[in-house]
Amino acid sequence: MISKSLKDQFIQIVSADNYRDSAAEKLVYSYDATPNFQSMPDAVIVPRNAEEVSQIVKLCNENRIPLVPRGSGTNLCAGTCPTEGGIVLLFTQMNQILEIDEENLTVTVQPGVVTLDMIHAVEAKGLFYPPDPSSMKISTIGGNINENSGGLRGLKYGVTRDYVLALEAVLPNGDIIRTGGKLAKDVAGYDLTRLFVGSEGTLCVITEATLKLVPMPETKKTMLALYQDIEAAAKTVSKIISNQIIPTTLEFLDQPTLEVVEDFAKIGLPTDVKAVLLIEQDGPLEVVDRDMKKIQDICLQEQAVSVQVAETEIEAEALRTARRSALSALARLKPTTILEDATVPRSEIAKMVKAINEIAVRHNVKICTFGHAGDGNLHPTVPTDARDHEEMERVEAAFEEIFAAAIDLGGTITGEHGVGVMKAPYLEWKLGAEGIAAMKLVKQAFDPNNIMNPGKVFAKESRKRVVISR
Amino acid sequence: MISKSLKDQFIQIVSADNYRDSAAEKLVYSYDATPNFQSMPDAVIVPRNAEEVSQIVKLCNENRIPLVPRGSGTNLCAGTCPTEGGIVLLFTQMNQILEIDEENLTVTVQPGVVTLDMIHAVEAKGLFYPPDPSSMKISTIGGNINENSGGLRGLKYGVTRDYVLALEAVLPNGDIIRTGGKLAKDVAGYDLTRLFVGSEGTLCVITEATLKLVPMPETKKTMLALYQDIEAAAKTVSKIISNQIIPTTLEFLDQPTLEVVEDFAKIGLPTDVKAVLLIEQDGPLEVVDRDMKKIQDICLQEQAVSVQVAETEIEAEALRTARRSALSALARLKPTTILEDATVPRSEIAKMVKAINEIAVRHNVKICTFGHAGDGNLHPTVPTDARDHEEMERVEAAFEEIFAAAIDLGGTITGEHGVGVMKAPYLEWKLGAEGIAAMKLVKQAFDPNNIMNPGKVFAKESRKRVVISR
Repeated sequence: MISKSLKDQFIQIVSADNYRDSAAEKLVYSYDATPNFQSMPDAVIVPRNAEEVSQIVKLCNENRIPLVPRGSGTNLCAGTCPTEGGIVLLFTQMNQILEIDEENLTVTVQPGVVTLDMIHAVEAKGLFYPPDPSSMKISTIGGNINENSGGLRGLKYGVTRDYVLALEAVLPNGDIIRTGGKLAKDVAGYDLTRLFVGSEGTLCVITEATLKLVPMPETKKTMLALYQDIEAAAKTVSKIISNQIIPTTLEFLDQPTLEVVEDFAKIGLPTDVKAVLLIEQDGPLEVVDRDMKKIQDICLQEQAVSVQVAETEIEAEALRTARRSALSALARLKPTTILEDATVPRSEIAKMVKAINEIAVRHNVKICTFGHAGDGNLHPTVPTDARDHEEMERVEAAFEEIFAAAIDLGGTITGEHGVGVMKAPYLEWKLGAEGIAAMKLVKQAFDPNNIMNPGKVFAKESRKRVVISR
Repeated sequence: MISKSLKDQFIQIVSADNYRDSAAEKLVYSYDATPNFQSMPDAVIVPRNAEEVSQIVKLCNENRIPLVPRGSGTNLCAGTCPTEGGIVLLFTQMNQILEIDEENLTVTVQPGVVTLDMIHAVEAKGLFYPPDPSSMKISTIGGNINENSGGLRGLKYGVTRDYVLALEAVLPNGDIIRTGGKLAKDVAGYDLTRLFVGSEGTLCVITEATLKLVPMPETKKTMLALYQDIEAAAKTVSKIISNQIIPTTLEFLDQPTLEVVEDFAKIGLPTDVKAVLLIEQDGPLEVVDRDMKKIQDICLQEQAVSVQVAETEIEAEALRTARRSALSALARLKPTTILEDATVPRSEIAKMVKAINEIAVRHNVKICTFGHAGDGNLHPTVPTDARDHEEMERVEAAFEEIFAAAIDLGGTITGEHGVGVMKAPYLEWKLGAEGIAAMKLVKQAFDPNNIMNPGKVFAKESRKRVVISR
């Protein structure tokens, strides 16, 4: 609860326009893109600069008010659901691109900039920002940084973390610090930049970021390989990598996903095959041509029934857009859509696909699987109905087995979605009790009063892992 | 001081052979590659596995004994000098390459593996590990990770941090934790992997690492561009980058360095020019040829007096080896060699070179400058004599001004050498008091008894920055 006097102090900082606590406003920010999580904040605050953020954080710290920094709420781990109430912090007034530096190949932004807007702005200068989460049309850079977002181009180019050079951050004690710089190399103390990337709003509030850009690839080609054997598709993925070809994109979609996406996007995707791989390579023309030829050969060796290269950029873009719409398309099937992102080493992707299919049968749930196969990062997705408790229990049991299978294959419970509330009970399966204890040391050091996005990452209770005899 | 009973407990853990406290042994590990720092350890211990490390750390923690993990001691910041006594931990019995995984393109190693040995081992499988610190012939991977080492190929490929996928680490409380995995994506909690990389042995003892490998570039070309105007050479560097060409290597050597290196290496380096750029590009043949042509044009536009492409790989390797020997060559000039690594944004490299030369004149010291110009990472080096107190004062004053100039240009006090003891008094110039306070939170959280490499990174007293009127 926020007292009248505290509310007045917040208004003093940000002005009455930027302090919102109507029922409607609070309802809007009571949930994010994660199904089944909702909790009302006490207020929504829209700061205009780092100084205001610092004052807000200090007040929250003094009064033990939870603070949840939020971009566009597209995350899928309930990471921005205000599960313990308090304040949701919005960055809609801190959404400027501050500088595109063409000499140092960097862009400096405020956290509220929409990812795709920034990508367009740098592309207009002939520069390239690779991380492209599927939500990039509406997600913000601040959200991407807090979640260490991935995307379709992660295989070749890495994830958000690999592009963050410098941060301005407000610590729970109100200190405004700057980490890193426009520097290719910097070892002046601990790497707080990368510690903050992916910290899910639990350590600090990010108020500015300088991101690395790279030269725009000269050309790009897109290919669709069709399979009647789902594991053959998965094996192709490992084989491309072990042949030392690193494509920009190596996406997998199984038949149930294809059907739904085609029904949604209507671009002529094949729906009579068991799986497709969407493969892209970019770079100098000669290299792209050579790699695409080699990849095509590998696909055919691995029993692809057909390999088609997109004829035009329009056709290629349609394929990419269709892939990016997979979640939205699947979400039309049933009232509730639960999407996961267990990730395994690339060599284990065929085993993981097999495990997911066996788990689906065993628990009698429909699992549509798609995702960044080249990263070992699949998105098994269950269209379901949260009101059907019996089915929800089977869905949860299935996902538990998927997490366990990923861990057994040397993988992780989350590749790019974050831990949030959703995965917190499973974190110990990946890290062990000692690993979690080490992370808690960091959390407690920065945020001793636990005001920063409380209830996220660290679970009150870890799930016990049940050993399943298979 | 280590009591008899404590010594017996250490011997119980590692056996008598691996506990060494003779005067000779202690003397050997009383210093590292940094001039002017020496301090005797109480003992040298050589553990054989993580379990032994854990027991040693626990004993040290209980008894408040300083612990200094040490690779080959090639660092230049006194990072492994046991300034507060205690135990030096050696990894000469934990020096195995555990696995080269050709499917996932990873190598898993113990910390004591010599960098170049590992590079040769992966290259034998057609794979490539890019970080190549100049000391790689004798440096260890454990040391590289603790210092986040750079190298000549950093411009295109990044630094050690960009290749560490997973760690096994022993925390000060004795817990053995594993971070990361053979995973392209992993957001299961805070990024402890990158927090530990570059933490200079102050947070944990690293006992195993899994490193990312990339496909071996198809081809490589090497070029030497000669300049009679030192700033023209520096301007060429920024211009290459702003033309969106990212060469593998872009090294700068000024005339004093050239003279010394040629005298040492005798490979026919020009000594009648004011500066040279050593430029390399790797990748597919067509791309390398095209980039080299463009780079050549830029060099000539920027007043290079000559541009020569190495005819053979033997010639190219001779040039690289000569560059790598710069420090050894310079070290022959005078009893003491002080080498720094202040780093600036690439766009500021010409200004930084100019500033260094002005500072040298102002303080009447000889400064030879070479380094990774493409990274904005220069190594101004002073051949001097530590016994000449009057000169040493001028040298120190000159370096202070160099740090200040780097900071003023948006740079940092250390690009790749680390803070250690040497740079600790200047860290606040880069981070501010709040930034240091934030890093101390991390240190205190992991190591409340300050046993891990005490006295490093954090200075007892920060240097006051004197404003110099120019």
